[in-house]
Amino acid sequence: VAVTLGEIQAALGAELSGDRERLVSAVNTLANAGPSDVAFIADKRYAEYLPCTRAGAVILAAELRDVCPVNALVVKDPYAAYARAAQLLYPAVPGKPGKDPSAQVAADSEVDPSASIGSFSVISAGALIGPGVTIGPGCFVDSNVVIGAGSTLVARVTLRHGTRIGERSILHPGVVIGSDGFGFAYDGKRWIKIPQIGGVRIGDDVEIGANTAIDRGAIEDTIIEDGVKLDNLIQVAHNVRIGAHTVIAGCTGIAGSTTIGCRCAIGGMVGITGHISIADDVRITGRSFVSQSITEAGSYSSGSPLDETQQWRKNFVRMKQLDDMARRIKDLERRLGRDTDDHD
Amino acid sequence: VAVTLGEIQAALGAELSGDRERLVSAVNTLANAGPSDVAFIADKRYAEYLPCTRAGAVILAAELRDVCPVNALVVKDPYAAYARAAQLLYPAVPGKPGKDPSAQVAADSEVDPSASIGSFSVISAGALIGPGVTIGPGCFVDSNVVIGAGSTLVARVTLRHGTRIGERSILHPGVVIGSDGFGFAYDGKRWIKIPQIGGVRIGDDVEIGANTAIDRGAIEDTIIEDGVKLDNLIQVAHNVRIGAHTVIAGCTGIAGSTTIGCRCAIGGMVGITGHISIADDVRITGRSFVSQSITEAGSYSSGSPLDETQQWRKNFVRMKQLDDMARRIKDLERRLGRDTDDHD
Amino acid sequence: VAVTLGEIQAALGAELSGDRERLVSAVNTLANAGPSDVAFIADKRYAEYLPCTRAGAVILAAELRDVCPVNALVVKDPYAAYARAAQLLYPAVPGKPGKDPSAQVAADSEVDPSASIGSFSVISAGALIGPGVTIGPGCFVDSNVVIGAGSTLVARVTLRHGTRIGERSILHPGVVIGSDGFGFAYDGKRWIKIPQIGGVRIGDDVEIGANTAIDRGAIEDTIIEDGVKLDNLIQVAHNVRIGAHTVIAGCTGIAGSTTIGCRCAIGGMVGITGHISIADDVRITGRSFVSQSITEAGSYSSGSPLDETQQWRKNFVRMKQLDDMARRIKDLERRLGRDTDDHD
Repeated sequence: VAVTLGEIQAALGAELSGDRERLVSAVNTLANAGPSDVAFIADKRYAEYLPCTRAGAVILAAELRDVCPVNALVVKDPYAAYARAAQLLYPAVPGKPGKDPSAQVAADSEVDPSASIGSFSVISAGALIGPGVTIGPGCFVDSNVVIGAGSTLVARVTLRHGTRIGERSILHPGVVIGSDGFGFAYDGKRWIKIPQIGGVRIGDDVEIGANTAIDRGAIEDTIIEDGVKLDNLIQVAHNVRIGAHTVIAGCTGIAGSTTIGCRCAIGGMVGITGHISIADDVRITGRSFVSQSITEAGSYSSGSPLDETQQWRKNFVRMKQLDDMARRIKDLERRLGRDTDDHD
Repeated sequence: VAVTLGEIQAALGAELSGDRERLVSAVNTLANAGPSDVAFIADKRYAEYLPCTRAGAVILAAELRDVCPVNALVVKDPYAAYARAAQLLYPAVPGKPGKDPSAQVAADSEVDPSASIGSFSVISAGALIGPGVTIGPGCFVDSNVVIGAGSTLVARVTLRHGTRIGERSILHPGVVIGSDGFGFAYDGKRWIKIPQIGGVRIGDDVEIGANTAIDRGAIEDTIIEDGVKLDNLIQVAHNVRIGAHTVIAGCTGIAGSTTIGCRCAIGGMVGITGHISIADDVRITGRSFVSQSITEAGSYSSGSPLDETQQWRKNFVRMKQLDDMARRIKDLERRLGRDTDDHD
Repeated sequence: VAVTLGEIQAALGAELSGDRERLVSAVNTLANAGPSDVAFIADKRYAEYLPCTRAGAVILAAELRDVCPVNALVVKDPYAAYARAAQLLYPAVPGKPGKDPSAQVAADSEVDPSASIGSFSVISAGALIGPGVTIGPGCFVDSNVVIGAGSTLVARVTLRHGTRIGERSILHPGVVIGSDGFGFAYDGKRWIKIPQIGGVRIGDDVEIGANTAIDRGAIEDTIIEDGVKLDNLIQVAHNVRIGAHTVIAGCTGIAGSTTIGCRCAIGGMVGITGHISIADDVRITGRSFVSQSITEAGSYSSGSPLDETQQWRKNFVRMKQLDDMARRIKDLERRLGRDTDDHD
């Protein structure tokens, strides 16, 4: 949609140097933006593009205002301001209220008249679908599921029985919530399935990426608190709890009964073991392996470095000799007579 | 459903200290259970909750009987007994026999009258659906698939042509079985697709988690033996064979033509290379990397430890110097005159 | 289908020692092939099976011709020739032209009459479906998607709005293309969603495995060039670019804005960080962690070795002491008086 720079200014609480009436209708990069586009600069690495930009306006910090050859929207945090401006220009469009003729809605479910139920979707008995909810095509909403106002199931989402989704949450295609947790008891000969009778509770303003799976709890619930953002292809096992406003990048796996704090930022393909807890405000870099609880805020990492394959093979072998190497260093130090006593 | 403690006792072969006629209808944790719930204690870490439990009955080992303030079901293996009791209280409910009017069932398929075919599911030509099978909504059963008695496709499961599923197996939402293996030959300029003409055979009592993928074989079949349990988001490449009663946790990937033995327990996010074999009764801890065959039962691991990011960076660099470090230790030992000859 | 060895010879440009009129109708392994099967030998490890094979013909290199007891198709590259012969014997069968009565096709979409639209699939407004395209059951083709001639969506594939697919590409079940990239700005209290307005462009002859996800770009497009082959359960984040004829094995994750060159071969479960670039003709072995750009062709690896768990624990601890160990070696060398000055 087209908005004036004055409207954007008001929404962002920005200072505007330039034409309040200028209409813009899109966002673009500094390098490619034209007169009807808004661009932004949040990272100085892109400063070289600023003097030559042809954007209709640029969102930037005060220190760059003088370099900006076009209309400038001056803010404290250009990246967050850009996010808000882009939301103005590209407002989320809820589905058309009502039910596609092909959809199946159980007689004893409650679907708000403003909700949209897409083609070939199934709403089962006892489900409760709030106002302004959009359920895209091919979704399966099992019995007694509750979906709060304004939430969206994009397409082909599965919510198993009793799953509760808060308000304004977005679930992308292929998401599976409330599938059975991986619970079996070995009786000496074979694995006996343990019925998974807990549920899944998901808060408000949560976003869940494509093909991510969140299992139902064994007895109690699996819980995703408000504002959590999960990327694609993430595995959340039974009875995990993820604290508010934590973000987790793609391909990460979280084993059962682990608790993650609030405002954490967890990278991609991180493996997190079960039955541990991670404090609030923890950062974990991509590809790390978390095998123990983390009790203090901070940034944590693991992983071994990439090398040319031939060279890597030599070091790879040595990783099995580390304890031996450490003992030999200790022994050498002892024999040299002046033991460095601050080592074990 | 509600059952008496006497019925549970009989099913578990337990010894009952207490009221045979007491009705219970749910399971719960020791801490939260009320008079109509059964709880259990299988791990001494939870023993503190036992003296104050308000459960209708507790499943426990003989040594804890005296501490139990309520009805006690005494068994040898409380965890397996709990699984059985929970199955009594939460019996799996098969789908309603017959076909939803929206489902498409090919004229030349054979669907047992007791099978249930859910909304918007497709059963293709030549498929054979056994008695008591439940096929949930949105499933695609391709041509000539065979599904044995009592198996369940929860929802949105895809079985490609010729896939064979045994009896009492459970496939969770998003599962894809029998998709083409990743087979291409490079002709010097581009990759030529190799038709994948093998199939997938899955045994009895197998469970497969949400969004897990098992590819069809290149020429011969990919095979999952009886009692195997696979968690969510697992990748099983073409011509893998997984032995009976092996369990594999989420996000693990198994490359082509690898054979895994029986009764193995493989953790989450383990990477297993192709064309190797793993013996029976092998445990592999989560996040390990298996690049060679494992010929003996036992527990195996790999992975590097989590550290504060700043400290990790220093050690990360050193991992590329390990071979050099090992040689320098050796050199120091030589120069100190008393060579430790049991090192290489 | 049945073809004569003469037809295969012509298609492969092979030299035929044997019966041009012999009909064959299947491929099989050297060990299991019968008289109506074609087998091949591309790896000398299987040479023991050649003298006793009962195949109708064997595809092999010139040096093995004399050992072959049956008809021989002699070629330079037996593996690529096998791929071509298998394509002759198992030609891809396009879907039946036309639309299944259950499918929903928007009035203002353009679907070529030769295209096949499967059961319960949805083709949205403005979509453009080319000649010979096959769209299997349960697919969701969102608005303004373009699919080139001869491409196939096997089943349950989701293409979000504006996604462009080239010709002859194959998308396996559960694939999600064009879902929102993982883009959020933190405003000090919570994450604000950044509308993802870029698209996804996928070239010709691309294959994408089951449950793989490719996100749309933040502003510009995510791009998969011609001939790329992606295995199952791969995550491709926003604004990634993958060069022509690159192949990537299952469970690999590629973070945002990373560029991968042409003709790369990337193993399974590799983690590739964001905002880096990888040169053409790079090989990366399975389970590696790529945290920096790779500027030269070659083979690269990372990862630590598998060991018995008890032994691994000892070395695992030492990995946090590596920098300390390196300094102590240096110190020992200094104290021994003859410093090895080519070490840091």
